[in-house]
Amino acid sequence: MLPPVDARPHHDGSPLYVSTDAPALGDAVRVRLRVPHRYGHVAAVKTRSNPNHEPRFTPAVIVHHDGDATWWEAELLVENPVHGYRFVITRASGETHFLSQAGLSDIETRDDDDFRLSTFAPPPAWGAETVMYQVFPDRFARSAAADGRELPEWAEPAEWADEPIYQGPSTPRQFYGGDLDGITEHLDHLERLGATVLYLTPVFPGRSNHRYDAHSFDQVDPLLGGDEALIRLVEAAHARGIKVMGDLTLNHSGDAHEWFVAARARADAPERAFYYLDDDNGYVSWLGVESLPKLNWASDELRRRFIDGPDSVVGRWLRPPFSLDGWRIDVANMTGRLDDHDLNAEVRQLTQKTLREANPEALLLGESTNDAQSDMQGDGWHGAMTYASFTRAVWAWLSEPGPISWFFGLPYPVMPQYTGEQVAAANTRFTAAMPWRSRLHSMNALDTHDTARFVNRARPGAVPVALGLSVSLPGIPVVFAGDEFGFTGENGEHSRTTIPWQSVDDHAATIDLYAAHLRLRREHPALSHGSLRWLHASDDALVFARETADEVVIVLAARADSDIVLDGIDGAAATRLIGSADVAPDARGARVADASGAHGPAARIRSTGMSFTAWQLPGVATPAFPGDGVPAAADSPQWSVVSRSDA
Amino acid sequence: MLPPVDARPHHDGSPLYVSTDAPALGDAVRVRLRVPHRYGHVAAVKTRSNPNHEPRFTPAVIVHHDGDATWWEAELLVENPVHGYRFVITRASGETHFLSQAGLSDIETRDDDDFRLSTFAPPPAWGAETVMYQVFPDRFARSAAADGRELPEWAEPAEWADEPIYQGPSTPRQFYGGDLDGITEHLDHLERLGATVLYLTPVFPGRSNHRYDAHSFDQVDPLLGGDEALIRLVEAAHARGIKVMGDLTLNHSGDAHEWFVAARARADAPERAFYYLDDDNGYVSWLGVESLPKLNWASDELRRRFIDGPDSVVGRWLRPPFSLDGWRIDVANMTGRLDDHDLNAEVRQLTQKTLREANPEALLLGESTNDAQSDMQGDGWHGAMTYASFTRAVWAWLSEPGPISWFFGLPYPVMPQYTGEQVAAANTRFTAAMPWRSRLHSMNALDTHDTARFVNRARPGAVPVALGLSVSLPGIPVVFAGDEFGFTGENGEHSRTTIPWQSVDDHAATIDLYAAHLRLRREHPALSHGSLRWLHASDDALVFARETADEVVIVLAARADSDIVLDGIDGAAATRLIGSADVAPDARGARVADASGAHGPAARIRSTGMSFTAWQLPGVATPAFPGDGVPAAADSPQWSVVSRSDA
Repeated sequence: MLPPVDARPHHDGSPLYVSTDAPALGDAVRVRLRVPHRYGHVAAVKTRSNPNHEPRFTPAVIVHHDGDATWWEAELLVENPVHGYRFVITRASGETHFLSQAGLSDIETRDDDDFRLSTFAPPPAWGAETVMYQVFPDRFARSAAADGRELPEWAEPAEWADEPIYQGPSTPRQFYGGDLDGITEHLDHLERLGATVLYLTPVFPGRSNHRYDAHSFDQVDPLLGGDEALIRLVEAAHARGIKVMGDLTLNHSGDAHEWFVAARARADAPERAFYYLDDDNGYVSWLGVESLPKLNWASDELRRRFIDGPDSVVGRWLRPPFSLDGWRIDVANMTGRLDDHDLNAEVRQLTQKTLREANPEALLLGESTNDAQSDMQGDGWHGAMTYASFTRAVWAWLSEPGPISWFFGLPYPVMPQYTGEQVAAANTRFTAAMPWRSRLHSMNALDTHDTARFVNRARPGAVPVALGLSVSLPGIPVVFAGDEFGFTGENGEHSRTTIPWQSVDDHAATIDLYAAHLRLRREHPALSHGSLRWLHASDDALVFARETADEVVIVLAARADSDIVLDGIDGAAATRLIGSADVAPDARGARVADASGAHGPAARIRSTGMSFTAWQLPGVATPAFPGDGVPAAADSPQWSVVSRSDA
Repeated sequence: MLPPVDARPHHDGSPLYVSTDAPALGDAVRVRLRVPHRYGHVAAVKTRSNPNHEPRFTPAVIVHHDGDATWWEAELLVENPVHGYRFVITRASGETHFLSQAGLSDIETRDDDDFRLSTFAPPPAWGAETVMYQVFPDRFARSAAADGRELPEWAEPAEWADEPIYQGPSTPRQFYGGDLDGITEHLDHLERLGATVLYLTPVFPGRSNHRYDAHSFDQVDPLLGGDEALIRLVEAAHARGIKVMGDLTLNHSGDAHEWFVAARARADAPERAFYYLDDDNGYVSWLGVESLPKLNWASDELRRRFIDGPDSVVGRWLRPPFSLDGWRIDVANMTGRLDDHDLNAEVRQLTQKTLREANPEALLLGESTNDAQSDMQGDGWHGAMTYASFTRAVWAWLSEPGPISWFFGLPYPVMPQYTGEQVAAANTRFTAAMPWRSRLHSMNALDTHDTARFVNRARPGAVPVALGLSVSLPGIPVVFAGDEFGFTGENGEHSRTTIPWQSVDDHAATIDLYAAHLRLRREHPALSHGSLRWLHASDDALVFARETADEVVIVLAARADSDIVLDGIDGAAATRLIGSADVAPDARGARVADASGAHGPAARIRSTGMSFTAWQLPGVATPAFPGDGVPAAADSPQWSVVSRSDA
């Protein structure tokens, strides 16, 4: 029988619990387990690692007590590039519990659920603090120069205020003419919101308004202002402390791409090996879409041109004069995968290597919209653009029930309906099998250019709650341009709304709401770096703590009136940061006594209706981890990785 | 809220549910979902596959109703070597449930939990029907020739009735002199028990009684009777319909092995690359045991000599004149894995290839005593010798509580105590991420030469219950020689007991008990091939059904008095096969009504104390799957793996 969620031992990859999140192979790392007094007396704690697929145990010792918990610490040796470990907890009763990244278990746990330390190169330091603003360049803003551009024959010009077409053959052809200088001219808006990263969907020339069907990777679309406009935008953004990430498709190109044209033109073209072409020039394409032929990553020349080295497509745009700060890789999940071969690992590893060498401060995100975890071990993408761990769960909690026409490509006839516990469970489940570091760099978007707008089916008043969760759960909060204007959209294409700069002021309330929540994320490092410790999960309310040595932020997300008692929290020490719920000490104290019979403090939260509220409390004071080079303690294990014998 | 276990939709890899368990890449496979009427009305069922890491859905249609359930069928296309899939079930309420191999879920499920079809070469047809008898050659029987053999200097001769030494330096040196002709002389005993496979721990010459420190793989230990004795044994076993499997270590050799001696003797020895040797002749060894230097599988020459081709070690002993029927690979989990490189997949794949070419009817099992699943996808080992999915769970259910000195190398101070639900959960958890086919070929041992004897700490009367579970759960039942004599043992070495042939008759009761349970397995194909459908899991009792078209076997395993009602089972149709529990129709009918309000049949089981009972019922009559080559039905999806366009 497992205790309530807030009475369980806790560990995660954050600094309170792990001495380093960027170990090298062979390093010793110290890990801690926080055992609430309410869990009861613990007789022993061990770590269980799995080096070379064989269990290895190290003992933990108590290093600290505070009012609410006992802290245990153990040392483990990182012996494989991704090092998995769990905790084995022997209770006073003799019963054994296992703590893995999937949660607490009273039976043995799977290797795939282990906590993970990744020895691969870490993401840039700014990554975890990203507040991302996503722009679809055709729709954000037109500079004056846009009026003078001649449109290609496939484009169907739209008036700026036209509703986006989202069905039928005109869908990719409808052309609004937004450009990069238009974005540059409106960077004030991003600053007002508090975005730290501008993520641009593709800027290469294609034959569509989305530009995912690039016909060249060597130039910025002249319709967007060309290379010079990108340089201007990046410089202006950098001057404001805003980074700029691009969007690159590694799974396929457009069928008008110079490589594909060359490939089909001559049987001996080197580019022929870049695709899956048969003798009749039939070819494999992305999900059967003929305009998107699939790239064949077995080709060394393709790698050389596209992802390998400073002059490849990946490298070039990250270096001066363009100086992009990273890439989001479209369809990363399918890249290099077809039938009986899987080159995804090689492609993502080479892409990361090129990225780091071209710009050591660049971030690399991979789109994998379902279970992303297999590809997020740190060897390639730093994090995921994904919907399973956050987006769909939050929609299922905060959307109106009833029939739907679109749900992330999944065949649901009605809007899924999750309880709060299910949201917490989904968020845990879809991050359990990746290193914590990858979780911190995965996107928590309410919607994107590929989805309906969240607000379309959101329950009344739900937006601040959903937005609050996106800025306060581990991961990168993302705003898709237009969210802050309250725009709706039935599906991805319908959501690619233009921004009505003329009437920005009419939307001040929503914009300010977004700015306030994004500011919360920016001003509180605990939301970017802190541990995630669940305190309460019920039908209608979620409460969790983001904890660091410097501060604790406690978050309430509720969709109905709530009255929640939190054991072990000192309500008197809380300063409210945002929202309208109240917290106060509960004089009755903790409902669950600890092993000695004592009842610690308790706090009582009360809220009405839809509520997102956050409070700051003092940080968690635990002893510093021993520094690097400090010899292992006397009780540490002697392990024999290598035996030395004289011949 | 999930319904009780017996009211849940069901699927697994067995013939009632999958049209083939040996598909080729590109094949269409039909899969079925059994939905009990008590689950309520289902509006739609879809499969969700994950080809190339992108979801693909196909619709299911109803193909059959019986008294207890509705059967849905869908077609899916196998697009990757291991093809994962799950079911998406839309209930009448609109709520969506997901069924994966980990069970039923009300939130989205992870890719790693998907059901799996493996396109790799299947195991030999006899594999799933294996009843395995494990022999440790030094301890089973001495032929007359043993008396005349001169012992090597390291051996410390023991009298046949001496207790095995299990601590201290004499542990590997104590030598009883059992040999292969001794086994040949006692094949009657294996026939009496009903064993179909004899698994021999190593027969190569070493410098220990266990022979895992082989100094040559080119000859059978003369102390065991040499090559000729093995030939005699295999011929005699085959004549009785008994197969013989050997034991081979791929992770390490002994330090007296001719390869290692050569490697350390000369700096330019080709064998130097077979190990991890440094310039001072220091070397990596298995868990720091100096006598077991670790093999370095980067060496092509090592592969050529050991695992590649008919004349390699792996191949040679599988061919005439030796004609072994398979290998159990020692320390398969660590093989080829060290620090930053992982060659395990290459080694296991090449080993399987050589095995199949040398003897297409051979079986290949890999030892991986904890979570074996990552290595059991069918590309290498056909199944696992493992303890997490069955052995430790059964011990935890049926062992006396209290302090222990040994538990599978895990640091538990007291014997774990599981409820019946936890046993079912562990059995599910540690088979959820492998293809069903691999599960059928994984060993369900109560104990082995590496473990204490189960009976050591078994609760009174527990042996038939544990033994019953080993023959009736999916997987290969294993008896370690001596189990059937009721011998005890504190750990692996202590359990390597000699067989007292003089007094076999004194042990007739236990031997007959074992024979009766093994016979149950042999006589009922449902236990080897049938589906596993859980009907009941509580503290003290487990009930499940093994189902095929020809028969159903319902199994009760209980450790205390039980009184269980099973909805949907016709108690009147049950014939008891073994055990003493009773089943009868329950006139009140099923406790849970179906969507139309009807209560189907119910059966009531009553048992006292420790009970293992099995009943036979008529098989499940469902329509045959459409044959190969039958075109997909009109409502089947058209998928576009390849788009064909003219240039």
